[in-house]
Amino acid sequence: MTDLLAAHRDRLDAALTAIRSRGYHSAFPESPSPRVYGENAAADGKTAFEAHLAKTYELDIPGAHGTVVTEQSPFGIRMDVAYPRVVEEGLDELLTAAQQGLADWRRAGIDGRTGVALEILDRLHKRVFELANAVQHTSGQAFVMAFQAGGAHALDRALEAVAYAYEEMHRYPATATWEKPAKGDPIRMEKTFTVTGRGVALVIGCNTFPTWNSWPGLFASLVTGNAVVVKPHPLAVLPLAITVDVCREVLAEAGFDPNLVTLATERAGDGLAKPLAQRPEVKLIDFTGGSEFGEWLEQNATQATVFTEKAGVNAVIIDSTDSFKALCNNLAFTLSLYSGQMCTTTQNLFIPAGGIETDEGHKSFDEVGQGIATAISKLLGDDARAVEILGGIVNQAVISRLELAPEYGDVVLESRAIEHPAFPDAVVRTPLLVAIDAEDADVYRRECFGPVSFLVRTADTAQSIDLFKSTVTEGGAMTAGIYSTDPKILDEARDAALDAGVALSENLTGQVFVNQSAAFSDFHGTGANPAANATYTDGAYVASRFRVIQSRRHSAEVAAERR
Amino acid sequence: MTDLLAAHRDRLDAALTAIRSRGYHSAFPESPSPRVYGENAAADGKTAFEAHLAKTYELDIPGAHGTVVTEQSPFGIRMDVAYPRVVEEGLDELLTAAQQGLADWRRAGIDGRTGVALEILDRLHKRVFELANAVQHTSGQAFVMAFQAGGAHALDRALEAVAYAYEEMHRYPATATWEKPAKGDPIRMEKTFTVTGRGVALVIGCNTFPTWNSWPGLFASLVTGNAVVVKPHPLAVLPLAITVDVCREVLAEAGFDPNLVTLATERAGDGLAKPLAQRPEVKLIDFTGGSEFGEWLEQNATQATVFTEKAGVNAVIIDSTDSFKALCNNLAFTLSLYSGQMCTTTQNLFIPAGGIETDEGHKSFDEVGQGIATAISKLLGDDARAVEILGGIVNQAVISRLELAPEYGDVVLESRAIEHPAFPDAVVRTPLLVAIDAEDADVYRRECFGPVSFLVRTADTAQSIDLFKSTVTEGGAMTAGIYSTDPKILDEARDAALDAGVALSENLTGQVFVNQSAAFSDFHGTGANPAANATYTDGAYVASRFRVIQSRRHSAEVAAERR
Repeated sequence: MTDLLAAHRDRLDAALTAIRSRGYHSAFPESPSPRVYGENAAADGKTAFEAHLAKTYELDIPGAHGTVVTEQSPFGIRMDVAYPRVVEEGLDELLTAAQQGLADWRRAGIDGRTGVALEILDRLHKRVFELANAVQHTSGQAFVMAFQAGGAHALDRALEAVAYAYEEMHRYPATATWEKPAKGDPIRMEKTFTVTGRGVALVIGCNTFPTWNSWPGLFASLVTGNAVVVKPHPLAVLPLAITVDVCREVLAEAGFDPNLVTLATERAGDGLAKPLAQRPEVKLIDFTGGSEFGEWLEQNATQATVFTEKAGVNAVIIDSTDSFKALCNNLAFTLSLYSGQMCTTTQNLFIPAGGIETDEGHKSFDEVGQGIATAISKLLGDDARAVEILGGIVNQAVISRLELAPEYGDVVLESRAIEHPAFPDAVVRTPLLVAIDAEDADVYRRECFGPVSFLVRTADTAQSIDLFKSTVTEGGAMTAGIYSTDPKILDEARDAALDAGVALSENLTGQVFVNQSAAFSDFHGTGANPAANATYTDGAYVASRFRVIQSRRHSAEVAAERR
Repeated sequence: MTDLLAAHRDRLDAALTAIRSRGYHSAFPESPSPRVYGENAAADGKTAFEAHLAKTYELDIPGAHGTVVTEQSPFGIRMDVAYPRVVEEGLDELLTAAQQGLADWRRAGIDGRTGVALEILDRLHKRVFELANAVQHTSGQAFVMAFQAGGAHALDRALEAVAYAYEEMHRYPATATWEKPAKGDPIRMEKTFTVTGRGVALVIGCNTFPTWNSWPGLFASLVTGNAVVVKPHPLAVLPLAITVDVCREVLAEAGFDPNLVTLATERAGDGLAKPLAQRPEVKLIDFTGGSEFGEWLEQNATQATVFTEKAGVNAVIIDSTDSFKALCNNLAFTLSLYSGQMCTTTQNLFIPAGGIETDEGHKSFDEVGQGIATAISKLLGDDARAVEILGGIVNQAVISRLELAPEYGDVVLESRAIEHPAFPDAVVRTPLLVAIDAEDADVYRRECFGPVSFLVRTADTAQSIDLFKSTVTEGGAMTAGIYSTDPKILDEARDAALDAGVALSENLTGQVFVNQSAAFSDFHGTGANPAANATYTDGAYVASRFRVIQSRRHSAEVAAERR
């Protein structure tokens, strides 16, 4: 086995430096430009993606029986990729096989495992265009976003998780000499500390961000010595099939059991996640998805340490601004990107009934709403440009919610359907803005996932902050924002955000958006409110994925053994 | 507020150095000698302890109604200390009060909270003789052990937890500048990272080690920004009442709400722990005690992160030795100390039916058992000396188990009652050794807590290792040991210990014992087998006790604000 860690040492070291300073860092270029990736990269990646279509994805998964086709592209293309199907009866075989390589994987040591993980990331990066196409056609993200969020940024987040795990495991010395003063000679012991994984880790993928939301957990668990079973969302299998394929390829090349990483594809409705999550072999679970199942996991998979990212009611407080146009443009992009289908998209915009002060003078509640609506309409005025921001609607449930939402209040901006110039069967929708009152708590206190946002009319900013705090405390949030020119209001909002346990973006008026978090610098989620019980990525995200097992002996004996 | 961290900086720095090297370190001298602590320290501490007796311990606990007397000294003295009684109906008031000071506690910052925690440890150290008496008369530990395990070593473990928490919190910068290259000027953001506690932490104390087992969790939670409710075992309240008293005193002096640390004393049988553990305000739980309740907590207090130390079946494999006498003496001390009432005491000694090779020639199974029995008899031959090793039996349940145990097999060493020269009503017992067969799985696969150990007759060492591995995997263990002169057997035992997830002590023949773990160097438990889901103390023990909440803003605005 070549020294994979040495090969990727510089990349790891830069990531380690970045997580300590949490300034800007990126290891994987986010621009899909031919100047960065080469003239043929895009075409080759598309060809590689298309080669999967209407075929069986060959993965030798223990316990799988037959194949299953489950995906439907939001862009309307036929995918017809068949995957080995895992059913509950196959779990014994799958989990037995998953555990076969654990002892060898432990013996690989921290550096050996880290080298393998970094090599996998490097290979995934080489297939980033293929992955971007796979993410696009399963999540509905437009291509550039799929390339960035599903490719480069996902690789950065995975590397961040590897870096935290590497640092965490190396907190403990491999050996220590313990010398206690005593009458006469000191008492001297030699100690050995070995990092061991917890067992089998389960990663449950989601439909919207199959790679970005799965990779941090996958790599954090793998590098800390666990076997990983990946259960993809039935509508977003291909990106994770490629991922698992690459993991197995590198593991096998490096002399490890490829079954340390497996793919458990189910037929939609099979309900495989529940029995899998409660298996005694499963000691770690990473889940992204709805609150109902996330809470079920937290409450029922108690044999495992469970990391969840669930639903939330993301909020922005609008109090005042010295740049009304930039405020509107910034929010317009946030609400439009991927049709608001991000776990980080703002749902509730709290605006005083009496309006706000701006650089353009006083703006009434209606004028603020109209300003945002106009900015959205302008951003999405050209259909060809609009589809590259909006992408496609990921599934029918989003359409159903969108169709119901106008009834909640006064429609400020209607959602419209857009025909995709390249994909005639794509389902594309623009954001809907609905004005409601602070009294309409039953509307804005629960998540309405998709291109629906509420302009909530509050008595004043004090009530906006109160409602922000209570909605996040009760319903959770992945993101929050405030626009204010008043330092006192900003301080109050910061305190409210700390109390509610949510990250706060203040006065975003440029090319940074409340729904975006930058790997190595921004934490994604906090683990401090109901939307998520963990953050990507910090010490808590990695520390309980392994244990340190020690042995100890009198020093003299060690010496004797060495003779 | 004086700079408490500066006052204790050297102690903290030495602890930080120690946890990185995990060599020998102790901040609090373990010898109760007058040469270390002064001529009057012991007498003054005893007087301070006695001043509590037959009185109400004055603590102003919100939600408490009336008082309750619950303790019975294993040494037979009348304690009659009354404590404020908390019942389920008072929990609203208690938990509301506990949360009042949280925002101020967060604002104290990492260094402010660490300074307070270190000052509390220093004050507890000043009362270490008083605490030792309190531990002695609630746990039944003999005085010197109570001073060490319940005083100096407990302080070291608490300091270790503080050091890990301090290091963990400081992994993240307080601020960062994020500067992303872009066309033209880079995009520049200022970010703030704030450590926030999870909410209310609950510490559930045990009867045998009221301080040693409670302090790490208490201090880890407190220093990371949480409020702590301490629910002591009804038979061991006083050590934790003193602890909470000192915490409140220091908090108040430093300008914080003393209700950040409270004591919830219940009447035995009130069952306060369950409703308390399931309160939504409770986000962290530290528990030491029986497996049944520990597992109940893990499965039912799912709103909290739960750290448990439960029952186990600690094992020693005896394969061969080059120092038979030392082996016997070492094990004799382990089995005798505190009458085997440590969570770390060896229960199962796996010995080949055909005997073992030693420096004194071949020893049959019976001769090995007899060697250990003789060493115990010799160690405990003098009653006055014996009671200082054995201490008292902590409660009636231990006596009941001890009385049943001779029926399990062939008694190799009978347990005998000893009259304590100083405490005529003390209940003192010597260890019982029972020889059983590998087939008697129902006997040795479950914990028989107290002065009962089994000599398990195995086919050979290979079977010993198998049984060691399977009993620990299924029943858990806090400790394990091996005696062998064969490097191959030692390697096999190490692998088995790694597979089973238990720390291994090899060939202990001197003044280190399998049932003892040294703070800063040995991990206590592993979190990798059913006996405990956490270890004292490592990164995983502290990392999920807090969250990092960020805020971010464009750099120019920061500049504008500063103008």
